[in-house]
Formats: sequence, C-alpha cells, structure tokens
Amino acid sequence: MPHHDQAPLKSARTMNRAFKPKDEGFEKRIRASFARQEIMKTVNASILSIEPGEVVLEFPYQTSLTQQHGFIHAGIVSTVLDSACGYAAFSLMPKGASVLSIEFKINLLSPANGKLFRAVGTVRKPGRNITVTEGEVFGDGDGGEKLLATMVCTIMTVYDREDV
Amino acid sequence: MPHHDQAPLKSARTMNRAFKPKDEGFEKRIRASFARQEIMKTVNASILSIEPGEVVLEFPYQTSLTQQHGFIHAGIVSTVLDSACGYAAFSLMPKGASVLSIEFKINLLSPANGKLFRAVGTVRKPGRNITVTEGEVFGDGDGGEKLLATMVCTIMTVYDREDV
Amino acid sequence: MPHHDQAPLKSARTMNRAFKPKDEGFEKRIRASFARQEIMKTVNASILSIEPGEVVLEFPYQTSLTQQHGFIHAGIVSTVLDSACGYAAFSLMPKGASVLSIEFKINLLSPANGKLFRAVGTVRKPGRNITVTEGEVFGDGDGGEKLLATMVCTIMTVYDREDV
Amino acid sequence: MPHHDQAPLKSARTMNRAFKPKDEGFEKRIRASFARQEIMKTVNASILSIEPGEVVLEFPYQTSLTQQHGFIHAGIVSTVLDSACGYAAFSLMPKGASVLSIEFKINLLSPANGKLFRAVGTVRKPGRNITVTEGEVFGDGDGGEKLLATMVCTIMTVYDREDV
Repeated sequence: MPHHDQAPLKSARTMNRAFKPKDEGFEKRIRASFARQEIMKTVNASILSIEPGEVVLEFPYQTSLTQQHGFIHAGIVSTVLDSACGYAAFSLMPKGASVLSIEFKINLLSPANGKLFRAVGTVRKPGRNITVTEGEVFGDGDGGEKLLATMVCTIMTVYDREDV
Repeated sequence: MPHHDQAPLKSARTMNRAFKPKDEGFEKRIRASFARQEIMKTVNASILSIEPGEVVLEFPYQTSLTQQHGFIHAGIVSTVLDSACGYAAFSLMPKGASVLSIEFKINLLSPANGKLFRAVGTVRKPGRNITVTEGEVFGDGDGGEKLLATMVCTIMTVYDREDV
Repeated sequence: MPHHDQAPLKSARTMNRAFKPKDEGFEKRIRASFARQEIMKTVNASILSIEPGEVVLEFPYQTSLTQQHGFIHAGIVSTVLDSACGYAAFSLMPKGASVLSIEFKINLLSPANGKLFRAVGTVRKPGRNITVTEGEVFGDGDGGEKLLATMVCTIMTVYDREDV
Repeated sequence: MPHHDQAPLKSARTMNRAFKPKDEGFEKRIRASFARQEIMKTVNASILSIEPGEVVLEFPYQTSLTQQHGFIHAGIVSTVLDSACGYAAFSLMPKGASVLSIEFKINLLSPANGKLFRAVGTVRKPGRNITVTEGEVFGDGDGGEKLLATMVCTIMTVYDREDV
C-alpha cells in the first residue's frame, strides 16, 4: 500500500490561482469515480491529495507494469497521469457532469525507475466545454524526486453520461 | 488467449512502401523484446503480425483495465499502441540498437468498449536517430471494426542500452 | 501565382470513406472564409481542391517565410496545414457553424525546402462537437514529391461566432 | 517597433533552476541566428530577453497575420512560440551546435486578439540530443495579460549543419 509522510507541495502554478469549484462536493465525487476505475487497483494507485484544479496520485513500482528494460511502461505512466489530469478537470466541473479525455500528449524525459511515483494533474485553463490540463510524473530517485514525464491533456465536459 | 481467424489487412500506407529491414533477424528480436515486457502479460496482449515497418498487437477486454465508465482506460489503449509503434520502429533498426519512445500523442475517438482490440503501429518516417510512427486502435463493435484511437509516436534509436 | 498541372490524388484514407456534407454550400463557404484569412495572402496560399472531408492548399517558397537555414519556418508550414485541416473539418459542418482549432501537433520530418508546397487536410473522425483531422505537407524535391510534415489537429464546431 | 516598459518576470519554473550554459557566447549566437530568420521580420518580432534556458520574444498585431475572425492565426502564434522555444534550447547548447524542432504541440486557449503578444520559451529538460521545451503566449487584454496558448516543443541538437 503506498505511503507518504510528506504532503506534496502545491505546484507554483496552482498556488498563483484560486480555482473556485462549481460543486462543493467535488472531492467526494472524485473519490467515488476513482474507486470505480478498476485500472487504478491494477496499478495500485492511490489519491494523495485533491484540491480545486489539482489532483495528486501515487503508485508504486510493480514488475507487472514494466517494459523490456525493467522500467514502468510509458503507457502506465500515461494511465495514472491521465487520471490525475482528468480528476483535476473534474474538480472544477458542475454536479452531474462527466469527464472525457479527448487527447493527450506525453513527453518521456527519463526512464521510469524508482520505487514510488507521484502523478500531479493541474488545470491550466478551465472551460465550459474544454479544459486544458497539465501533468507531471515524479520518481523517487537517489538524488531526491526526479521529473520523469510531462503531459498535456485536453478534456471535454460531458453532460449526459453517467458513470457505471 | 486472443484468437483471430482473419489475418489483418496491411494498412494502405504500408502497402505503398517497401521498407527494407537493416537486420533480417528483426522478427526474432521483436518477439524476444515483447516477451520481456511484463506489462504485455498483464494486459494479455499478443502479437498478430510483424512486417518491416508494421507491427500489429491484440488484446482482449478485461475488467481490470477499465476506467469509471467500464471502458478500457485511455492509458491502457496507449500502452499497447505505444508498444506496437515502438516495435514497428524497432523492425527497421540495426542489430544491437534499442528503441525509446520520446513522446507520443493520442486522440481518443470513441470509447474503448468491445471484446477484442487491435493495435496497429506503422512507421511513417524512419531515420537514423528519430523515427516517426503512427498507431491506430480498432475495436470489434456490433457493426464491424471501429477506429477508437490514433497515435503519433516519436521514437529514438538508442545504441548503448541493452534490454533487461 | 501557384500553378499545378496535375490534380492531386485523393488520399487513400479519403477514398475509402464517403463523407456526406451537411450543407451543400460547403465549397462556397470555405472559399469565402479562406478569402477572409489575410495570412493566406501573406503566405501566397491558394486552394487546390475542396472535397467533403478533404481540402488541399498550396503555397510557394518565399524568402520572407524562412528560418535561419533558409527553409520555410515550421510555424508557416503549421499555418497552412492548420488552415487545410480546419477547412476539411468545416466542409462537413452544418450551415451557420464556425470552426475553431483547439490544439494541434506537428511532426517535422524533413526541412521544408523546395519551390512549391502542398498541404492536405483530411477529416479522420467527424463529430458534432469535436472533429479530428490529419494533415500532410509535401514539397517538390528533386526526386518527386516528398513528405515534409504531418499534423493532427483537433477542431471544435462553434455555433455562435460569425466570421469577421 | 515593439516596445515594452516592464521587463518580463522570469517564469516560476526557470527561477527554480540554474541552467548553466555550455557556451558563454549563447546570447550573441541567438541574436545572430534570430537575425537570419526572415520570418521574424515578416511578423515584426523582436527579442525581449535571453537567459540560459529562457527566451522571450514579442510581436505586435498585424492584419496581414490574421485568420477569418480577425485574430492572429494559430500558425503565426506557433511560429513565434516555436522560435522562442528553439532559442531557449539553443541557449544551453555547445558552440557549433544547431537547433532543430522535431515536433511540437500547441493548445489554443483563447483567441489571439490584442495589440501586443509575448512568447516565452523555456527549457523543461535539457539533453545532449533531445531538449524538451515549453512555451506560452500572452496577449495584452483589457484586464491585463492573458494566456492565449501553450506549447510543448521537442528539439534536437544537430552538430553538423551550419546556419545559412
């Protein structure tokens, strides 16, 4: 089970803004939706923090998630980062709305090795229909946390689709 | 175990080209590398076909890979597609080279539901250092195969890193 | 003034589909909008062909559009390609709708040198709100046409904004 | 001629790092290369600041650069932003190296209207072969500066190509 003694710092970008949620129940909604993502159990991810416009997830190294060099597969890094970005966007959506990633781009800066990975999703520009988010994945290397990947994820607010 | 009666058609793009592999052992190298990707076992993916410049993978629906609506998570679609693209690039690389995705972009066109998914990775532009690939994921919907996602993946040839 | 003896071939992708326009006046609407794009005059671009789901533009080499190596700047290649993609999407939109690029990604495969450049924009997946398009830019090299860049462009249909 | 009374603030990201240039002549090299980009004259862009890992450019509104709604065309925003990102990367490259954008992605957050635009290019991850940069374009709206677009640009260091 992932564990973290230190609360992650809010990103500089988020600190400069004061995103106001449209629905005060955003944290509860996110936790409920996260619990329905079976893939999050498969990768053993957990929620570190939820703020308006920023969600931080964490997941540990598992051999079952690796590519041919023994690092976490880029697609798995994408998986957790896309969820972090999606929930960051979701935190600012009105009640009853649903979140849909329409596209994302990821840059893989360093091999994803380490024991624990932290995925930070942040809203860059909220919108009624389209929300642009950014994500970062950090690994716990020998010299402290290391940035492993960055994502830009474009998200659509969907008003008529219920979660399973 | 995934099963397919029909051999997948080569994409129109690939048919128009005649990529010449630099190493005749490319298929063997790809199968060996694929076997080292533990994540491919986790998602139960298998190789449908390997040609110079094109690799097709397949994976079945699994509840353990789903997001909150019960569809395959976009990151898992990315995972298999990134591997298909990577191996398409790998098929044209010289002996001893290794493949590294430096970035990819995915557009999610339709929810990934269905029983079986086919991921096609194709080389668009091979290069000594940088190879640009494209990927498509299809699902077996009621009305036949349906395009679910498209990817562009930029891949670097690495000459000094051995597989695990 | 750009000139072309040969009609450009339809892309294999477009040939396989039969996009049906929602408004038969699509060609007229595109030509009118194109005429309002002052930047198209600056880069001396012209329309080669308009079909449902595919628009082809052309522009000549001009020193005023070059980067430090004397090639056409990647951003100018993007400019014409984004317009080609946007009008490809526009060709399938209903009367009164307007087209808005929300994001695009371009891969620069070869330096943009040559005398004449052809930008092909194609609809990959039309949608009521979001249309995904793909673009390719070709240059007239010594050995015939050469693929210089590929784009994926995500476009939103806007219903309440009039053209200038 | 563009003019700016206030020095632009360094981005939070850059302030946290201390990029060390490999060649102390980086500013001179950038100014010389910028002067060779004919397109920068066409869009009337100028250099606001050059720091190791960050370059800021500026350009004014011109009707000749507009799309059909009278806003600056997304491709022109991309043009200046790509140059800002490229020169940010270039600032950390060794003497004799040349800079090549291999791909970029831009998200268009708001229409590019206003009188003056500022393009900030920042190095996110420098590398011997591949440097990942990020860019932002701001416009001077009525309520102060407004973020109009964000870019991620992947850049390759080229060692054997001289500028024109």
